[in-house]
Amino acid sequence: MSKVGIIMGSKSDLPVMQEAIDILKGFDIEIEVDIVSAHRTPEKMFDYGKNAHTRGISVIIAGAGGAAHLPGMIASLSPLPVIGVPVKSSNSIDGWDSVLSILQMPGGVPVATVALNGAKNAGILAAQIIGSSDKCVLDKIVIFKEGLKRKVIESSKDLI
Amino acid sequence: MSKVGIIMGSKSDLPVMQEAIDILKGFDIEIEVDIVSAHRTPEKMFDYGKNAHTRGISVIIAGAGGAAHLPGMIASLSPLPVIGVPVKSSNSIDGWDSVLSILQMPGGVPVATVALNGAKNAGILAAQIIGSSDKCVLDKIVIFKEGLKRKVIESSKDLI
Amino acid sequence: MSKVGIIMGSKSDLPVMQEAIDILKGFDIEIEVDIVSAHRTPEKMFDYGKNAHTRGISVIIAGAGGAAHLPGMIASLSPLPVIGVPVKSSNSIDGWDSVLSILQMPGGVPVATVALNGAKNAGILAAQIIGSSDKCVLDKIVIFKEGLKRKVIESSKDLI
Amino acid sequence: MSKVGIIMGSKSDLPVMQEAIDILKGFDIEIEVDIVSAHRTPEKMFDYGKNAHTRGISVIIAGAGGAAHLPGMIASLSPLPVIGVPVKSSNSIDGWDSVLSILQMPGGVPVATVALNGAKNAGILAAQIIGSSDKCVLDKIVIFKEGLKRKVIESSKDLI
Amino acid sequence: MSKVGIIMGSKSDLPVMQEAIDILKGFDIEIEVDIVSAHRTPEKMFDYGKNAHTRGISVIIAGAGGAAHLPGMIASLSPLPVIGVPVKSSNSIDGWDSVLSILQMPGGVPVATVALNGAKNAGILAAQIIGSSDKCVLDKIVIFKEGLKRKVIESSKDLI
Amino acid sequence: MSKVGIIMGSKSDLPVMQEAIDILKGFDIEIEVDIVSAHRTPEKMFDYGKNAHTRGISVIIAGAGGAAHLPGMIASLSPLPVIGVPVKSSNSIDGWDSVLSILQMPGGVPVATVALNGAKNAGILAAQIIGSSDKCVLDKIVIFKEGLKRKVIESSKDLI
Amino acid sequence: MSKVGIIMGSKSDLPVMQEAIDILKGFDIEIEVDIVSAHRTPEKMFDYGKNAHTRGISVIIAGAGGAAHLPGMIASLSPLPVIGVPVKSSNSIDGWDSVLSILQMPGGVPVATVALNGAKNAGILAAQIIGSSDKCVLDKIVIFKEGLKRKVIESSKDLI
Amino acid sequence: MSKVGIIMGSKSDLPVMQEAIDILKGFDIEIEVDIVSAHRTPEKMFDYGKNAHTRGISVIIAGAGGAAHLPGMIASLSPLPVIGVPVKSSNSIDGWDSVLSILQMPGGVPVATVALNGAKNAGILAAQIIGSSDKCVLDKIVIFKEGLKRKVIESSKDLI
Repeated sequence: MSKVGIIMGSKSDLPVMQEAIDILKGFDIEIEVDIVSAHRTPEKMFDYGKNAHTRGISVIIAGAGGAAHLPGMIASLSPLPVIGVPVKSSNSIDGWDSVLSILQMPGGVPVATVALNGAKNAGILAAQIIGSSDKCVLDKIVIFKEGLKRKVIESSKDLI
Repeated sequence: MSKVGIIMGSKSDLPVMQEAIDILKGFDIEIEVDIVSAHRTPEKMFDYGKNAHTRGISVIIAGAGGAAHLPGMIASLSPLPVIGVPVKSSNSIDGWDSVLSILQMPGGVPVATVALNGAKNAGILAAQIIGSSDKCVLDKIVIFKEGLKRKVIESSKDLI
Repeated sequence: MSKVGIIMGSKSDLPVMQEAIDILKGFDIEIEVDIVSAHRTPEKMFDYGKNAHTRGISVIIAGAGGAAHLPGMIASLSPLPVIGVPVKSSNSIDGWDSVLSILQMPGGVPVATVALNGAKNAGILAAQIIGSSDKCVLDKIVIFKEGLKRKVIESSKDLI
Repeated sequence: MSKVGIIMGSKSDLPVMQEAIDILKGFDIEIEVDIVSAHRTPEKMFDYGKNAHTRGISVIIAGAGGAAHLPGMIASLSPLPVIGVPVKSSNSIDGWDSVLSILQMPGGVPVATVALNGAKNAGILAAQIIGSSDKCVLDKIVIFKEGLKRKVIESSKDLI
Repeated sequence: MSKVGIIMGSKSDLPVMQEAIDILKGFDIEIEVDIVSAHRTPEKMFDYGKNAHTRGISVIIAGAGGAAHLPGMIASLSPLPVIGVPVKSSNSIDGWDSVLSILQMPGGVPVATVALNGAKNAGILAAQIIGSSDKCVLDKIVIFKEGLKRKVIESSKDLI
Repeated sequence: MSKVGIIMGSKSDLPVMQEAIDILKGFDIEIEVDIVSAHRTPEKMFDYGKNAHTRGISVIIAGAGGAAHLPGMIASLSPLPVIGVPVKSSNSIDGWDSVLSILQMPGGVPVATVALNGAKNAGILAAQIIGSSDKCVLDKIVIFKEGLKRKVIESSKDLI
Repeated sequence: MSKVGIIMGSKSDLPVMQEAIDILKGFDIEIEVDIVSAHRTPEKMFDYGKNAHTRGISVIIAGAGGAAHLPGMIASLSPLPVIGVPVKSSNSIDGWDSVLSILQMPGGVPVATVALNGAKNAGILAAQIIGSSDKCVLDKIVIFKEGLKRKVIESSKDLI
Repeated sequence: MSKVGIIMGSKSDLPVMQEAIDILKGFDIEIEVDIVSAHRTPEKMFDYGKNAHTRGISVIIAGAGGAAHLPGMIASLSPLPVIGVPVKSSNSIDGWDSVLSILQMPGGVPVATVALNGAKNAGILAAQIIGSSDKCVLDKIVIFKEGLKRKVIESSKDLI
């Protein structure tokens, strides 16, 4: 069965990244969560990136702030699809630094970037990637999208 | 077998999007290319988004410039993973418009965004998504990454 | 008689969009308010855009935040003038995302964009559009502008 | 019959603004073109803004570059809907100056802003404004949009 | 004797503009303060700009926020030096709108722009302009600059 | 009689700064031109700033690109009004660096900033500063502004 | 023995700059702290820059906000390596002004720029510069980096 | 004797990085040049970063474009001072991506960032770092700075 690896550069990113954890739990998809810092634990990052696909992980979600190198370095080291979550940290320049550090990868090494602080969408995207070859998960995505629709319809009812 | 749908908002995006086509052909992954404009052919876009997963497509790559709504609207309509390619068009404000229109999707509807004009990476990412459940494609990714490495090593030989 | 359709991508946009509602009520122009999400209720959006002009609506105001696709998609689907209100939402990158997603529409499909959170001006613009063919509403606009002037003149009196 | 006033801050804006002229001619809508500079001919601008609606004009399109004050000042002086076209001039800072000078109008005085150099869309929007109360023009808009669609469909035929 | 005219687009700009008032009072330079809105009181602005130099004013300070047209329009109407103060108002896009609307004036019509919310510096600059032909005011500027220096030297004394 | 000191950080700024020279010559105002680099000739800059007002100069125009420190440092050293011209140099980040380095001076030390590459306006502003106490120069400004107006009126004649 | 000179443009920068002081104390590296304002105490700055290397200082850290000229001017005056810390001050435009004023130095006069408010990193970089020729300090850097790693590893232990 | 390691992410960065090579040769400082890609040769990068200080290198200059991770990753792996050169590559978003990816490093891991394409300054900074403990190199820096001054003085002679 598919497993999603969720890593982040610092424990301070956890409140943002928790949304990826929660959404994947909601889809009953197995996850594994860890703190891996590109700049402070480069060896751990190396091991993680080199071996994730041999340990049964099929998609990696990596969140980081500022000059965010974790998603791109993991994408460099692993053949798996890597989803990058730009995190708006305290000394960030309005989040532009993490967005551009993750998005603007050179030709050859993609990172699937989601919105600033968009960990929830990172989780859904991971599920969609699994769903692209797993009919059962795809069906859950369809149901999830129906739920989104229903909530909007509900919310418009009491508008006057 | 997996198939990747590649769409773009205008034929003028083709020179950029061709890189996605070429890279996927190089991986021997089946593709289907079409012009689908969110703003000029909304009905065609609707049909495309609603039915892609029922026609054997497992990943969609959508490229567009300016206020680029195609990737996000397809992501709204399809349960499949959607990769968005911001295209730098002529009257774009330095590409910021297409980058932000594709990246900053609301919670619930992710688009896997790649770099400005990063169609090559969109193709690789589509292959990685397929490879996450297809050992044969994963192996090709590993070989592809070895090739990237070899080229850099070669290029450094004739330095000085 | 003319009617203005006011829609927004999420109920959380209502505090901003309320200013459009209030100003149009002040001009005694009939309005119709609804929640229509491009990304979560694409079918409802489709129906809305396709049919608004057949239901007696003559101007549409659409507000949305982040990668704001609602105004542009409605402009794609309807022959009516569409006024777009960029809303500064919580995870927005300082509002640039919604501004550019609404403003930078491709040739052929205009959106009349107003300032960030400028729902009040969207309401006035809708009234001006109606006033451009309705002498009675035009007169109200003239009186409204006199009122703006008077308030500034008053405010300068107690300046010392 | 409705007439659209098209003005621009400098004759050097004409190549951009010509697209508004052409599109409105294509819709058989009467136009009137003039050079009116907020900064060099403030009296002419004052007269223009004060009297346009008394001379049979029903919509004004104003284009300007840099610190573009023409659209906003005309909107201050006239009760008519004013469409602003940010023009990317030579010493502009990538067009941001004209975009923000036109878009970010204070509450009370809207300018219907279109994309950078988006004069074509300004013309279409003017037609839509007229069409909102003129069934004959509305029908032309519907036909125009069909044409946009047809061209995209055609362009996709000779793909591959 | 020289007099400085201080105007602002809205009474809400007064807390920022007060610093210009205070600094000029400190230099014993005569001032005249008024609210003049480019967009809501265009006629008053016209009169102000046309006549300031005939009423004994020799420098004008104009502050405004958002799409700030007041400084540039006054510079269009008056032969006097005009100092522009970009004010960071509530719905401003981080102040960029007022900065660019004031700074990026076209060739022929300069505005002497100071920093965002830099009303204090606007006051000092007005004094320097007067001082450039008035030895007595120039001497006060020299003394003022000595005071700045002294305060920094003092502040460094209790640093450890 | 009043004299304007025009300095620039590098001879490569001369093509831009020439417009200030030309406009002041046109107003028959005495000028003095020099290359003074904040970063490469700090002692010369120091002497210049300290002594300009004792040598009969009444206004200083300083142009520089990139991290442009010349205008601000001269403003630090001289009691005279200093006009700063941000120059868009080759490795500039779109001119933002020179604009912000010149504009955003701290409280106490103003620089009268003009538009990017706006040396022509710097020259006009210097003339206006002199004109604020010299009726003869003020009259020339009035005539100059009439000329601007006439040219726009002329240019609109052969439209259509 | 090596000494690091730490200067800042205003006492209000001390809370940010304290991190450089603390980290260097932790490395047992001698420091000297002072307030030196480019704009308010240019003579003191001149003396500081001219003489630092003759007083036993081997690295200078300079922090400033807004149009931050202190680091670049010190780099102009001293042959020593100068580390610049952009400080996000109250009227800064999101910190972009200080970042660009410090980073974008012209060819010939480098400033080693660290992140916005990155005084801690400035201190570490100063230690690394000393360590590049002092084995004892280099060893401390190695140990410091081990500490960073250990903290991340620890923080991941109680993650679930 | 001290040696400077110069690395870059791609051979296409060589034209920019050549300026660092030339300036260091001019100072008679030993250099070693290599291509090391963070994303395509992560193992080579790892070895480089881990071992540079044991191979007699005392300063590292790393240049890269786009989402530039090389300087920051080397800073993560090496205890030496690392100078980062943001390179403006073809699909860069005006250079902002490489600037922010290199500058905005998290606390603990500094990169001494120079201007966009500022390889010349990177070379000078490396020499200054060596000069901070090597009187002979420091003297060369002093002479180099005299040369900069002389050239500016010369260039001003034939003005007018």
